This record gives sequence, structure tokens and C-alpha cells, in this order.
Amino acid sequence: MHLFDEATLAVAADDAVESPTRTWEADLPRSMSIVDDHVHGGFMLALLGRTGVAAVGQDEREVVSASATYVKAPVVGRATIETEVLRRGRTASQVRTRLVQDRATCVEALLTVGTLTDAPPQWGEVPPPEMPSFADCREAMRAATPGPGWDGPPPMAQTVTMAFDPATAGFAAGRPSGAGELRAWIEMAGGRAPDPLALLFAVDVLPPATFDVAITGWVPTLSLTAYVRALPAPGPLRLRMRAGPIADGFVDETCEVWDSTDRLVAIATQLAAIRMG
Amino acid sequence: MHLFDEATLAVAADDAVESPTRTWEADLPRSMSIVDDHVHGGFMLALLGRTGVAAVGQDEREVVSASATYVKAPVVGRATIETEVLRRGRTASQVRTRLVQDRATCVEALLTVGTLTDAPPQWGEVPPPEMPSFADCREAMRAATPGPGWDGPPPMAQTVTMAFDPATAGFAAGRPSGAGELRAWIEMAGGRAPDPLALLFAVDVLPPATFDVAITGWVPTLSLTAYVRALPAPGPLRLRMRAGPIADGFVDETCEVWDSTDRLVAIATQLAAIRMG
Repeated sequence: MHLFDEATLAVAADDAVESPTRTWEADLPRSMSIVDDHVHGGFMLALLGRTGVAAVGQDEREVVSASATYVKAPVVGRATIETEVLRRGRTASQVRTRLVQDRATCVEALLTVGTLTDAPPQWGEVPPPEMPSFADCREAMRAATPGPGWDGPPPMAQTVTMAFDPATAGFAAGRPSGAGELRAWIEMAGGRAPDPLALLFAVDVLPPATFDVAITGWVPTLSLTAYVRALPAPGPLRLRMRAGPIADGFVDETCEVWDSTDRLVAIATQLAAIRMG
Repeated sequence: MHLFDEATLAVAADDAVESPTRTWEADLPRSMSIVDDHVHGGFMLALLGRTGVAAVGQDEREVVSASATYVKAPVVGRATIETEVLRRGRTASQVRTRLVQDRATCVEALLTVGTLTDAPPQWGEVPPPEMPSFADCREAMRAATPGPGWDGPPPMAQTVTMAFDPATAGFAAGRPSGAGELRAWIEMAGGRAPDPLALLFAVDVLPPATFDVAITGWVPTLSLTAYVRALPAPGPLRLRMRAGPIADGFVDETCEVWDSTDRLVAIATQLAAIRMG
């Protein structure tokens, strides 16, 4: 089984199949951590998404929307997930999920579960940005000299390959463009095809778009909302992450994801805390 | 007291000031209803937002982000609000709120509470769209002949005056432009100055942007996320609502709000269900 699929599988800790509220157990693996054993936020969204669909009991459906609030960064190790089904519906079901570690709430997410296809939209295609091919972006990454302070990829890099559009990769060398936009290709390790759960992971996989404005400390996500708009086609994904206004110590960011057929398959926004110099 | 301020005031139903979980009582007034006694979604977001700030006990702070999932449309009358403070923090506090009526969950919202100012952004101003003045838009609305099926303003129109940019008002006469974009000015009755709670109401006050694509039945919001980015200046607000792709019976929409000084003060997205003909 792929690392990602292993990592997002929570196991029911009760046999209360008919109850609206249930408890699940999960193991947050090192392979999904970033720094200091802290677990990646997009991975947690995928974990909660998969568990939410299981709680609703509609395995043929997908997470179409997920809104998470990040309360406390969980660490590698065991965690409990609490789910409460708010409504089971024909068009959409709604479920609340909460990830708890050592009795502290780490992440809480409200999910909408529905049916998605790969049929083209009835209206409103959104074209992807112009950017060099995946191969060319990878080649440019290999050729680049990492900036000072680079101490190798985080454990999470085992799960996903990421290649920045060289035009937006200046931040890595300490030279942000000032535009507040990052663009990159990503692919799951071993070429695992993307699916709606991988999209929940993908929308939070890039560094903060503010790194293209100013090099700051980390920009912790307070709240993240993702909409999955279609079943993605196999192949790498293209991501564009853009920063909104930086004011009062907050920034909002928008992440769009296109599949290999140029279809917009996910869109997400987040509000993060930021300390400018 | 202004209708809106009266309507968004919930009263504690316990004296458990120190407890993380509390219960509140509210009265959903007819003045905040749309059709069939159903209460307006943006009003509920403002009601939950104000109650969430009270639950956190940081009255000098504002709702900076709110993500709501709409489970069941509540009707005019009494309702209970349950709050759970997830974290009280220096930069941000987080609280979960739930509106219950007749023991059924109607709306659940995750809120982030923080401090906002009216200082200009450190980076990233977003200019408002070009559109005629509030006076000109109002004049055009008055001169327009309502389309068939128009049976007068909903009760909520007592609270807010709305004037569409004539270029995007074709939907009212059955002639959508096809662009999927609505623009309008709004002002609270009596010229009540906007504040962060009014912005939570404002981001859901326009008709669905899909009305500018095709005239359909109602487009119920499943999930809505709003970020309040600044304290708005006194005066009317400008709103732009844009539709994303329509696919698989879902659409995502983005609403931006500018204040009278051209400052982007709120941005919101929602996922809604839609049935195209």
C-alpha cells in the first residue's frame, strides 16, 4: 500500500456503526511530518476527510468541501478522531471531525460529502497558468544551489515530488519576486494517481505564498477551506498559490489545483498568521 | 438599537462563564427572513460570530475567519446556540458554534477570533471593480421594470439597501450576461456603519452569482467561509460575487467586499448545490 494510503487510514475504535457519533484511531507517521515531528496540515485534512467519508458510510462518495481549524500542531504518534454525522443527504452529507491527541483538540474540520465525476464542467472552465513542463521544472530544481539554512528535505518529501516553476522559485535562494505567487508541479511518490484525498493534501503542500513577498518565519495556518471540484485525471498536478493582503498579522491565501488534462480540480483558501520583519 | 444589532444578540442560558462549553438563546426575527420564514444564511453567520466572540470572552476582538456548514434551514423563532472554546490565544482564539432548533442542528461554524485595525495592509492591496456610483446604481434599479415572478422585497430588505451595477443586473429581467459575476452596493438601513459582523452578513447577501449564468431554482449554500481582513470605514460597501465552475451539481463562488475607502475588507467563498436545466 502507498505510504499516503496507509497513513490516511483510521480504524474504528467502536462498533457503533449506526450511531451519529463515533471514535476512530489513527497513527500519525513520521513519513507525514515536516519539522520537529510536527505532522503536515494537508495530510491531517486528508486523514479527517477519509475518516469523515467512512463515518457517513457512503464509501462511493468523496469529500467535496472541507473546512479545518488548526488549534494545536499534533506530533508523530497515536491520535483519536471523533466524528459526528450532521446529515446524511441525497445531494450532500455533512459531518464534523476532530483530531485529538493527549486529550487536546488539534484539528477540527467540517466536511461535505457528495458525488463527483470527471465530466467536464457545464459552465466555467478555469485555465491553468502558463508554466514550464514538469521535466523542465525538475531539471531547474536539480541545477539550483540551495540557499543557506537548507538542511535537506523533510520526511514528507518521501510521499510527494515537488518541482517549482523557476520564475517563482526565487524564495529558495532568498530572492522573493514580490508578486506573492508560487507555482509548482507535484506528483505522489511512485506515480500514485491523484484522487480527492490527495487533493486535500495537495492544497496545503506548497510553502506559504508570502515567501514570494518576504522571507519570514513560518506562517501557521489558522483556518483552511478546500473544495474538490472533480475527480482528477492520472498524472502530475499543477498548483498555483497566491497571497492576499498582509494586514494586522494575518494573510489569506488561495491555492488552485489543475490535473494533467488542464481541468481545475480543487480550490482552497486559508487564513494564516504572519509576522513581517 | 438597530434591527441587525438586536437580531444578532444571543443571551447566555447558563452562568458557566469559565466553562469551555456554553449554551445561549437567540430569537431569529422575521426581519432577517427571506422566503417561507427561512432565516438568512449570512445573518446566522453574524449571529454565530457575535456569540462566538462572547464565548471566548474577548469583547475587544473580532471574528477574523468563519467557516459554516448549513445543515438545515432554521425558521423564524427561538433557537439555541452551543459554543465550545477550542483555544484562547494571544494572536488568535478558536471557537466552535452550533445553532440548534427543535433539537436539530441547523448551522455549525468554526470561528477564529483576533484583533483587527483599519491600518492599510503591509502588502497586497486589491482594488475594487469599476462600477457606477451608489446613487447611479440606485437610480437604475428604480427605473427598471421587475421581471415576472417578482412579488416584492423579502422581509430582510428592511435591514439592508442593495443596488446592483446595471451591467450585472440582467438576471432580474431574465437576461443573465453569461459572465457569472454580480456587482452591487449595499448599505445597512439608516446608514448604520459597517463592522466585522455586518461583513459576515454582507458576504452572503447577494443572489447566487450563477443567476448571471442561468436562471435556476435556488442555489442552497452547503459550506461558506469568510475572512474579515480589516475594520471597514463608515459608508456603503461594494460587493463582487463570482461563480467558479458548475459541475456535478455543485458550484463554488467567491465574494469580495470593499469599504468606502476602496479597501478590501472581506473575502468569502462558498460551495453550493445547483441544478442546471
